[in-house]
Amino acid sequence: MSTSIQSAADLNAPPVTKILADFVSQHPSQGWSAEVEHEAHRTLMNWLGCAVGASGHDSVQSALAASQEFAPAPQATILGRKDRVDMGSASLINGISSHTFDFDDTHLKTVIHPAGPVASAILALGEHTNASGREIIDALVLGIDVACRVGNCMYPNHYHIGWHITGSTGMLGSAAACSRLLKLDAEKTKMAIGIAASQPIGVREQFGTMTKPFHPGGAARVGQMAALLAKHGFTSSAKALEAGRGLIQTVSTKADWTEIDRQLGKNFEISLNTYKPFACGIVIHPTIDACAQLKAKGVNYQEVERVELKVHPLVLELTGKKTPQTGLEGKFSIYYGAALGLIFGQASEQEYADAIVRRADVVALRDKVQANIDPNMSEDSVEAIAILKNGNQVKVQVAHAIGSLENPMSDQALESKFMNLSEPILGKQQTQELIKACWNLGKASDLKSLLKLSTPS
Amino acid sequence: MSTSIQSAADLNAPPVTKILADFVSQHPSQGWSAEVEHEAHRTLMNWLGCAVGASGHDSVQSALAASQEFAPAPQATILGRKDRVDMGSASLINGISSHTFDFDDTHLKTVIHPAGPVASAILALGEHTNASGREIIDALVLGIDVACRVGNCMYPNHYHIGWHITGSTGMLGSAAACSRLLKLDAEKTKMAIGIAASQPIGVREQFGTMTKPFHPGGAARVGQMAALLAKHGFTSSAKALEAGRGLIQTVSTKADWTEIDRQLGKNFEISLNTYKPFACGIVIHPTIDACAQLKAKGVNYQEVERVELKVHPLVLELTGKKTPQTGLEGKFSIYYGAALGLIFGQASEQEYADAIVRRADVVALRDKVQANIDPNMSEDSVEAIAILKNGNQVKVQVAHAIGSLENPMSDQALESKFMNLSEPILGKQQTQELIKACWNLGKASDLKSLLKLSTPS
Repeated sequence: MSTSIQSAADLNAPPVTKILADFVSQHPSQGWSAEVEHEAHRTLMNWLGCAVGASGHDSVQSALAASQEFAPAPQATILGRKDRVDMGSASLINGISSHTFDFDDTHLKTVIHPAGPVASAILALGEHTNASGREIIDALVLGIDVACRVGNCMYPNHYHIGWHITGSTGMLGSAAACSRLLKLDAEKTKMAIGIAASQPIGVREQFGTMTKPFHPGGAARVGQMAALLAKHGFTSSAKALEAGRGLIQTVSTKADWTEIDRQLGKNFEISLNTYKPFACGIVIHPTIDACAQLKAKGVNYQEVERVELKVHPLVLELTGKKTPQTGLEGKFSIYYGAALGLIFGQASEQEYADAIVRRADVVALRDKVQANIDPNMSEDSVEAIAILKNGNQVKVQVAHAIGSLENPMSDQALESKFMNLSEPILGKQQTQELIKACWNLGKASDLKSLLKLSTPS
Repeated sequence: MSTSIQSAADLNAPPVTKILADFVSQHPSQGWSAEVEHEAHRTLMNWLGCAVGASGHDSVQSALAASQEFAPAPQATILGRKDRVDMGSASLINGISSHTFDFDDTHLKTVIHPAGPVASAILALGEHTNASGREIIDALVLGIDVACRVGNCMYPNHYHIGWHITGSTGMLGSAAACSRLLKLDAEKTKMAIGIAASQPIGVREQFGTMTKPFHPGGAARVGQMAALLAKHGFTSSAKALEAGRGLIQTVSTKADWTEIDRQLGKNFEISLNTYKPFACGIVIHPTIDACAQLKAKGVNYQEVERVELKVHPLVLELTGKKTPQTGLEGKFSIYYGAALGLIFGQASEQEYADAIVRRADVVALRDKVQANIDPNMSEDSVEAIAILKNGNQVKVQVAHAIGSLENPMSDQALESKFMNLSEPILGKQQTQELIKACWNLGKASDLKSLLKLSTPS
């Protein structure tokens, strides 16, 4: 009848849906390096901390209230809360909470936040099916690989068209991971990925609203249901991803098929996952990092005359707000970020409280920060000079901000971030035990201990 | 950062999300002509019959089994079955069943099947909230208007890119209709439409699989949940439809904004809704219609020497299968369709049973049908000549097949179609009562009677 705008590419498409389904259903458990295994635990822990930390947020309250209209069965845990809901609603809500602070993991190549859709779906499903920790880690690695490989195939065009790529690839990762957890064979896994392929979630216009964190949550639920449908014999196209009117060519003007199976089963996309140390946009990170280093070098913020920053032009374009009045505005102020680094040495969600944004000494320091554009700076670098009242100067140069692939957060820093997120909800001792349970998850015979520790006692 | 491929259009976009939300939340109950009111009942009845008729299909069994994994609360009816599930699952399953036979209503301008996403969502929600029949009819008319107006805005480009437009506009219709049913104000209705705008469902590659009927079901559920989220304070972009990175410009290369509010509240898209008399693709309809007229003129199929058809070229391209062996293949055979018209005078789902496709007298007649292409014929016309063994000829010309806008099915024909679909499931007497309950729905104080009659006693 009519032709797809990209129908020429159809002829060259390999059997993407089958390749990914075979991979997910057949790859050996823990068939990867110790580094990948470790990264899986880091990814899970970082995601869990974000979900626990935001578990009392308005977006979570609202989504929970809506879910309770369905009188859900108490099948699965909502992280950080005592409420229990059906596993579909738990996937949705944990996916929402984990992305609410914009503090979850990032696959920088594609700007996908992969844990939200994948971990939210399998933790809820695994709780109900009594999965082992090993099975969760396996499903997490494989599900993330599926989402990010499809992301690599379509990025950047897909993102530029308007899709929030986390939700519009995440449902595939969730479907793949849930299929793995349900031990579906390759054929049914293919059907599950295919069912999910009809349900991409998220347009970028939603950024700044609760519907942004809805995207990973919705993707988690869609993928979980797709796997359950496939388990019960529901069918989809075996070429749902790659066909001319399949997902990829419908939502992207770029389809680089080589990304799907290049080094498949050898390199894992989770190795490219990164974690934010600071609860704000990525372009402020070098500045906060540098100012925290100034503090560590002995600079007392009360002795500072002024701070001079040299930054990439994009930094001022995105975060040039000079006089933020709220925490949310603070996230878009490089000046406020510099003050946080110097005063607190960190910038967790707590440092973005409205009260701190308006604190007199914070405002005073913020106003002493000057940011100058230098087109020669890279986006993840900064030069920061503190000029002290006594005339001394202290300088820090950051080539790659902490949290980048080149300079990843240490395990200790991840634990500290987790503590900041979780302690207000679960208390110090329980959070410490939960951190241990995260590191040991791959060896846990079931999820009971982890889940119990994830809810207020 | 980067620009949308259609960012120029952004500047000219009217506030589409607000316009539709204001309309849906504020339009007076039954604020339309008697014709529109009548069409709403026809739409509802036709949709209900399709859902009841397919309620035992594999796709429904499978979706029900998957839904039951969530241990759903018994909030809402699955049409044609005794099972009860939560209202979200009921939306999904009734949406699936009503589209399973490809026999539901069609807004021919956009090829949207609007009742599936809208009616499935509001009937389940209304059952739980104890809505009146009046409220259901109001929500149906307004929800269909929203889905079809957005469809008009994007069609045909959106469809040609690869979207199954029923699911990728239906979630908006469902969100709008459920918002109306929940009596959300204009602001919350806007949020509901916005939340749904991030969740278009369906790529055309799924045609021929169970995921095709999943699309209206999924859209029904998405929209219902969006309304419930909005009710509980969940937020979305107020420009989620029209912004540069909103839904419409992300999934379509055409955006004719004038379609959104042209004659809004004066003309209703449900007036353009049509119903299929025959359970097969639309291009076979003129032939079946003509052959049924031959039978009505007294032609006995056992006295037929041969049948000559003159058809539009597309007919043979799409439905040229000469020797179908199964019911599904029969749906792609103009020859089989002609035989059904002459022998049975109809072509309901029963006439597409495998056993009838293989029946000796049917095969014999099918092989006597000749179809000749005539580029001067329109797609919804046919000329059919029966040449009898005694040398006589009987000729019928159909300018617009029954079921087209120019030649709509009569209420009596709709009832007869409904009877064919429903009687095998609910029995003759109950079906007759259910037909009455459909016609009287706008006056019913609640849905109890209709729903009770929709399930096997």
